[in-house]
Amino acid sequence: MRMIEIISRKRDGYEHTEEELDFLVRGITEGRIPDYQLAAWCMAVYFQGMTPREARNLAVKMAASGEQIDLSSIPGVKIDKHSTGGVGDKTSLVVAPLVAAAGVPVCKMSGRGLGHTGGTIDKLESIPGYRTELPIAEFFQQVRTVGLGITGQSGNLVPADKQLYALRDVTGTVESIPLIATSIMSKKLASGADGFVLDVKVGNGAFMKSQEEAERLAELMVAIGKSAGRQTVAVLSSMEQPLGRAVGNALEVKEAIATLAGDGPADLKELSLVLGAQMLILAGAAPDEETARRKLEIVLSSGQALHYFEKWIKAQGGDPSIIDHPERLPAAAVVRKVLSFGGGYVSGWETEALGLTAMRLGAGRERKTDPVDHGVGLIIEKKIGDRVVAGEVIAQVHARSEVEAARAAEEIRTALKLSAEPPARAPLIFGYIV
Amino acid sequence: MRMIEIISRKRDGYEHTEEELDFLVRGITEGRIPDYQLAAWCMAVYFQGMTPREARNLAVKMAASGEQIDLSSIPGVKIDKHSTGGVGDKTSLVVAPLVAAAGVPVCKMSGRGLGHTGGTIDKLESIPGYRTELPIAEFFQQVRTVGLGITGQSGNLVPADKQLYALRDVTGTVESIPLIATSIMSKKLASGADGFVLDVKVGNGAFMKSQEEAERLAELMVAIGKSAGRQTVAVLSSMEQPLGRAVGNALEVKEAIATLAGDGPADLKELSLVLGAQMLILAGAAPDEETARRKLEIVLSSGQALHYFEKWIKAQGGDPSIIDHPERLPAAAVVRKVLSFGGGYVSGWETEALGLTAMRLGAGRERKTDPVDHGVGLIIEKKIGDRVVAGEVIAQVHARSEVEAARAAEEIRTALKLSAEPPARAPLIFGYIV
Repeated sequence: MRMIEIISRKRDGYEHTEEELDFLVRGITEGRIPDYQLAAWCMAVYFQGMTPREARNLAVKMAASGEQIDLSSIPGVKIDKHSTGGVGDKTSLVVAPLVAAAGVPVCKMSGRGLGHTGGTIDKLESIPGYRTELPIAEFFQQVRTVGLGITGQSGNLVPADKQLYALRDVTGTVESIPLIATSIMSKKLASGADGFVLDVKVGNGAFMKSQEEAERLAELMVAIGKSAGRQTVAVLSSMEQPLGRAVGNALEVKEAIATLAGDGPADLKELSLVLGAQMLILAGAAPDEETARRKLEIVLSSGQALHYFEKWIKAQGGDPSIIDHPERLPAAAVVRKVLSFGGGYVSGWETEALGLTAMRLGAGRERKTDPVDHGVGLIIEKKIGDRVVAGEVIAQVHARSEVEAARAAEEIRTALKLSAEPPARAPLIFGYIV
Repeated sequence: MRMIEIISRKRDGYEHTEEELDFLVRGITEGRIPDYQLAAWCMAVYFQGMTPREARNLAVKMAASGEQIDLSSIPGVKIDKHSTGGVGDKTSLVVAPLVAAAGVPVCKMSGRGLGHTGGTIDKLESIPGYRTELPIAEFFQQVRTVGLGITGQSGNLVPADKQLYALRDVTGTVESIPLIATSIMSKKLASGADGFVLDVKVGNGAFMKSQEEAERLAELMVAIGKSAGRQTVAVLSSMEQPLGRAVGNALEVKEAIATLAGDGPADLKELSLVLGAQMLILAGAAPDEETARRKLEIVLSSGQALHYFEKWIKAQGGDPSIIDHPERLPAAAVVRKVLSFGGGYVSGWETEALGLTAMRLGAGRERKTDPVDHGVGLIIEKKIGDRVVAGEVIAQVHARSEVEAARAAEEIRTALKLSAEPPARAPLIFGYIV
């Protein structure tokens, strides 16, 4: 078999055979396929797509290309939750203790942020002492004892994906739905959970800008997960504005704690309950959504969820005193209010632009090797539908300097869309793919 | 400007601006664009195509990326003839002396064969002593004195194309019509002729299998030539069977000489007259096709064309005695007849397969660096429409060994398509694009 034939077959719209995918994944993993051939293949996939069977076979073979984690030493059904990435998306910080408090173990491996989106590991690293690189045995022991844990991706998980992703990033092929789906699902399969709840973000702050695209991605990921023998559900949720109000690592940790304490933004609480309920159902801890949701609302309002958060942070080396003393989290040198020039109703936010503003303040990274400043970020004070009068505060900037704060304020004002009339209600949840 | 943006714009179907094409061509020429980005771009072009304006701008910039030949020291209007490549296509060997004998100078740079197609330079090199790497000043002097010459591509013509072609070859993007058109036309523009007659081959032995594809390619090449200020005409000609009867270097030289002596295959003679007539018209040496054709028929039947062939070969260092003594050309050790197993009418030949059979005998090359055996090849004795009885000779194989001859004979028999009824007449010329 030759790579040129594999490229030509995909270019001409054929479905790859298992043998072809074997050749491909082995070739990538062993570094035997030149980058230029892989790049041409990725672009051919961009145009010709993949069948669900093909994507499933590719994801399974990619998952098998490196280490695969065995979670069987942890009792119970392990359900992982994955977000396709958004702005201000700190849901995992809320959902993990919420679900653990309801009796379902959470054993999660998370990534770092890139571009306009944040990553759970960066957020957790703003907690003094929190360890994101636990030895796997120690991590499993923690989950068995405490009921939950979130660590960074360890070991040599899906080496083929690392090669492929780096190449897609520089060849205009990141946007291919089957390549996104196989990249995500190969890592999920290798990380060993029994089931997955996928939070597929839709909107101007997400990778999928339209509901139709997001549905295609969600359907393909669910098909891959199920045909690989794992329970999989996808939730389509809005990324037409930042989730909650905080964007930036320590700011988001604070907001997650507030939400666990019953004092968080409505959308973050709601999405956490929706995703958590699906996790409970997949884990067999609740027969239906209503029961699952009631369980979660009880552990939330009783303080049990916050208690699990505390236990978790402490077990993983973090300083739990940040719960009562959020001022102990890293903070920015300069905090400035951003005032609106105009008045009206908030009809929308340019969410990706806000993510990039936060990134430029230092909250995220443009390149994988860039350092992150955990104290900086934004607080969005006005959400879609809110009324604004000229001169009113629409946001706060947490920056390293006045110059950076002024630039960010300008960008935030540009990202705000006002209308004379109240906009139509924007839904938070667009639907489920089961 | 960044290459990733150029890739994304082509992927999304935009027309490249002149600035983008400048960046691209300069980047390729200077080796600043990584192969993997260029490969992704080529595949995006494969799917999204190019507008005529875009292809013209790309070809002109590619032509300007290296040396450009100045033919102004040769008096008269210089018209180049180019074939997109076929099996048994020795037309240049006939057309060049034919047109020169009719008073139009022919100053041609040709290439070598690759894969199933032969190259004019390989054919000429079967003539003992023929020099294909003349210094340019000496070559021009020959054309001024003798009226014609064919040499190999010299100097650093279109370095960007060399890079791009090598990459397309291994990334499944050779087949892109705008990339073929810009590759051919950039070299034509850089080689300095005032006009071009393009012989675009159509059929199962050509790169363009369908008339529709061939028309698209021809139209794009003509548009590029004209908008770059050169007179350009394309002729669509059949490659549903080898042109003439001979396939292989010395065998084709012999057939070209026979044709110039008035004793060649009808299709080769006809195509030579058709292409030659267009060259005369573009050069201003004839007002219309009828006049042009009459002129050519006169120089052919009078022996003037053969005389020009002799003068040319002699001037370029070749042994002109091969004209009267074709046995002085390289010959194969083994010559075997191929007999038909079945009977009926020849309804078709798998022409690309025949080209590959000749290549494997040693007449062509699989890789650019492979050596060529000038003596080997095939003689196809039966053309489409001919009657065949079982046991009759359908071809001759000229091979290095009995084993190779036997394999080739088997392949030739497989390539022959017989039918019980006489097939519909297959046209040689499908049309003109002007």
